[in-house]
Amino acid sequence: MIDVEAGLRELLDSLHPIGRNPGTSGYRRYAWTPADRECREWFHRQARARSLAYQVDRNGNQWAWWGEPRAGSVITGSHLDSVPDGGAFDGPLGLVSSFVAIDLLRSRDIVPTRSVAVANFADEEGARFGIACAGSRLLTGALEPDRARSRTDADGVTLAEAMRAAGHDPGRLGRDDEALARIGVFVELHIEQGRALVDLDAPVGVATAIWPHGRWRFDFVGRADHAGTTKLGDRQDPMLPYARTVLAARDEAVRRDLLATFGRTLVEPNGTNAIPSRVTSWLDARGPDPAEVTALVAAVVDESTAEVSNESWSPLVEFDRPLRARIASVVERVTGTAQVPMLPTGAGHDAGVLAAEVPTAMLFVRNPTGVSHSPAEHAELADCVVGVEALAAVVEELAGR
Amino acid sequence: MIDVEAGLRELLDSLHPIGRNPGTSGYRRYAWTPADRECREWFHRQARARSLAYQVDRNGNQWAWWGEPRAGSVITGSHLDSVPDGGAFDGPLGLVSSFVAIDLLRSRDIVPTRSVAVANFADEEGARFGIACAGSRLLTGALEPDRARSRTDADGVTLAEAMRAAGHDPGRLGRDDEALARIGVFVELHIEQGRALVDLDAPVGVATAIWPHGRWRFDFVGRADHAGTTKLGDRQDPMLPYARTVLAARDEAVRRDLLATFGRTLVEPNGTNAIPSRVTSWLDARGPDPAEVTALVAAVVDESTAEVSNESWSPLVEFDRPLRARIASVVERVTGTAQVPMLPTGAGHDAGVLAAEVPTAMLFVRNPTGVSHSPAEHAELADCVVGVEALAAVVEELAGR
Repeated sequence: MIDVEAGLRELLDSLHPIGRNPGTSGYRRYAWTPADRECREWFHRQARARSLAYQVDRNGNQWAWWGEPRAGSVITGSHLDSVPDGGAFDGPLGLVSSFVAIDLLRSRDIVPTRSVAVANFADEEGARFGIACAGSRLLTGALEPDRARSRTDADGVTLAEAMRAAGHDPGRLGRDDEALARIGVFVELHIEQGRALVDLDAPVGVATAIWPHGRWRFDFVGRADHAGTTKLGDRQDPMLPYARTVLAARDEAVRRDLLATFGRTLVEPNGTNAIPSRVTSWLDARGPDPAEVTALVAAVVDESTAEVSNESWSPLVEFDRPLRARIASVVERVTGTAQVPMLPTGAGHDAGVLAAEVPTAMLFVRNPTGVSHSPAEHAELADCVVGVEALAAVVEELAGR
Repeated sequence: MIDVEAGLRELLDSLHPIGRNPGTSGYRRYAWTPADRECREWFHRQARARSLAYQVDRNGNQWAWWGEPRAGSVITGSHLDSVPDGGAFDGPLGLVSSFVAIDLLRSRDIVPTRSVAVANFADEEGARFGIACAGSRLLTGALEPDRARSRTDADGVTLAEAMRAAGHDPGRLGRDDEALARIGVFVELHIEQGRALVDLDAPVGVATAIWPHGRWRFDFVGRADHAGTTKLGDRQDPMLPYARTVLAARDEAVRRDLLATFGRTLVEPNGTNAIPSRVTSWLDARGPDPAEVTALVAAVVDESTAEVSNESWSPLVEFDRPLRARIASVVERVTGTAQVPMLPTGAGHDAGVLAAEVPTAMLFVRNPTGVSHSPAEHAELADCVVGVEALAAVVEELAGR
């Protein structure tokens, strides 16, 4: 039997230096950048070190196969890219746990009947090109290849150019029925992004659903002018309606018990003595009920003077009920608890995208502070060990022996 | 006699392509960048073309001498750098007009008794390193050389490094008594940054004063967190107090009849699904009375939860009274008007910095829309011609013949 804790620590440590921003200790691993390439090379090394057959699919997702790549296999994994100054666990914990789970099963001489693969989905966070879960959405056809290829980053580089520069041919993007057929079931382990497991005093939980969520772009247009000479009455300063809309969104969210956030804002020309010509910001809105979320957005748009466009909408995802029941009973056996917590989440995941095509499930590992998308994100190693043991047992259960 | 309009058009046109942002048609001529270097080469070419002796002083300001460089000379000029996406006239009109005014005086066979020079002051806008009028402030000693050298731009490049890369030795920065002694009087021609001359139906005006003004940095500190999973009650979202402070500053400005602007804002990490860890923004506040301006800022700080630091403060500048009376009568003679408009301005200028050391004055040229610090900034060529004729007459009057 391997030492799971040592295996986890070694793999987590080997990822730590990649794409780290020394100023914040957070990670900047954006899709198809040099930092992302280092992450992908790490994945390839992990596959080689375990003699797992390595594949890259048409959409840039990486696969490491324990057994022959074939239809109906058991897939586990997550992503390695990050939000700006994200934490060390969101994504990587799922990959690290998948590899250590395979090591654990092998050390117990388990030989699964169905093939097993670890998948690293490309560009999950959408931090660079603004589309979350791009790798899995392209795989299922939920994202149009032309729309993906033409997306640009902040420097005007298209996704197609960035992929090509990173050595991946963007010409073959699109729904990949062969790759999809190989996914018999997908289980993603992820650090919890909230404190439900803390409150329930449980190291791991099973996901029930992903809340519907979307992103709306708000453009407040004004007129650039000198801040030191333009009378207040002559100004068209877009910062003022922007500020009012930020506060209106919060008020609506409190009133409706939903989540609404303006977290990304760009000001033009962004000079200290220049009245802005434009303020652009993105509203992120989520909640358990899609009708409530769209009603909130409509109310904010109504109170605002901005030009608004919807950039993404992810409907409610309910994870496969029989699968989550089966997984819950495996986790209960492994952790020796009567009832594993079953939780919804407000965060999008590749598992949510794949759920439209195949049975999927998610395991959450406790996050002591609940902090996520931050350098302060953390999981205790002891909880990660329970996560690996649970994931290994789930893979063993699903793959047969 | 030369054709002033043709001379103006030629010089303005020769500057137009430099540092132009095709996306906005505005200019990005930041100190010590390649665009700034092109502007400085333009200045050097204009000096050479007129056989004016060329100098660069210890602080990087450029000088073109009509006559021997000596103490007590008549200096005219302005700056060539710009704010982000600034217009074509703010700064350049003063340089272009100075060269054409010399051409005009020479074509009339004027030989001035005192030497005359055109000066291009470095880094007037402070767009890159955050200190306005850096070249003139260093020259007079109002800015500490060490403080200047260590200022960094958005990429972390220090002013010293940027100067050195542009071929200027930053080791010799500081008060320059020899260069100052050569300035007997300084007259800066500038496009008006407001609509007072439009309302008064006058092509040019004379400045009376520069309002006191300052910049304050507001740091709103929060905690980065996932926008899709963190309950509203668990958030420390700095965008909310930022929005409230923007609106409070506007309310205070309206109530007190002053100017207050938040025009530059930086959000960290600035991700659509990340609650910001920090929002930093700069308050620009101005008005005729320094006590009123500081009272406004104190009230905004009081209502705000931010950490606030003052980054600059420019006291009220009253331009030399005898000089402005003398200039006004010259302008009235040239323009054939009974009374040239005498105006205060809210904008800082090198003339305001030099006023602490030598008699200085400013001429304003009408701005039909009042728009400034914007690609839409504009002056009619006919008004610019009147500006050159007025400036030439002022130089002739001050330099003697």
